[in-house]
Amino acid sequence: RVSVVVRADGQINPSIRKSEEKVADFVKASELPKPKAVFCRCWRAEKFPYCDGAHLKHNKETGDNVGPLVIDTAAAAPASQ
Amino acid sequence: RVSVVVRADGQINPSIRKSEEKVADFVKASELPKPKAVFCRCWRAEKFPYCDGAHLKHNKETGDNVGPLVIDTAAAAPASQ
Ligand code: FES
Ligand code: FES
Repeated sequence: RVSVVVRADGQINPSIRKSEEKVADFVKASELPKPKAVFCRCWRAEKFPYCDGAHLKHNKETGDNVGPLVIDTAAAAPASQ
Repeated sequence: RVSVVVRADGQINPSIRKSEEKVADFVKASELPKPKAVFCRCWRAEKFPYCDGAHLKHNKETGDNVGPLVIDTAAAAPASQ
């Protein structure tokens, strides 16, 4: 007898808002947290769409190398010239 | 003889910058494209970290529901009160 564990579906998102056909998030630039906005790209964060460090566990478990998108919101818009 | 195709690694990112231990991207808010910045969260975009619609193919092939992060950069910062 042969027993094989197969994960063949290839899905990236195991659990976030699966009732939605496509999970897109819309954020106004003026409402981004300061001094930086850190967004999840691993689909494992409890506080999705924001990163909470869950990518570390995912990377460790799978050997993957995913990480967040960081938007630097510290500086105001550049002064006019 | 039994032949089984197994994808057990569970990795999210198949090919982007795999030589990096962790793929994080840093963008200055003041340098985001206008009127919107659309960032990839499916790890399939040719123009990663930006979305180029590759999530559509991934979702169709796997039944997944991932999509981009959209930052609305159209409006200037709110006027002071
Ligand atoms: S928790 Fe998902 S990228 Fe950090
Ligand atoms: S191409 Fe990856 S989210 Fe759109």
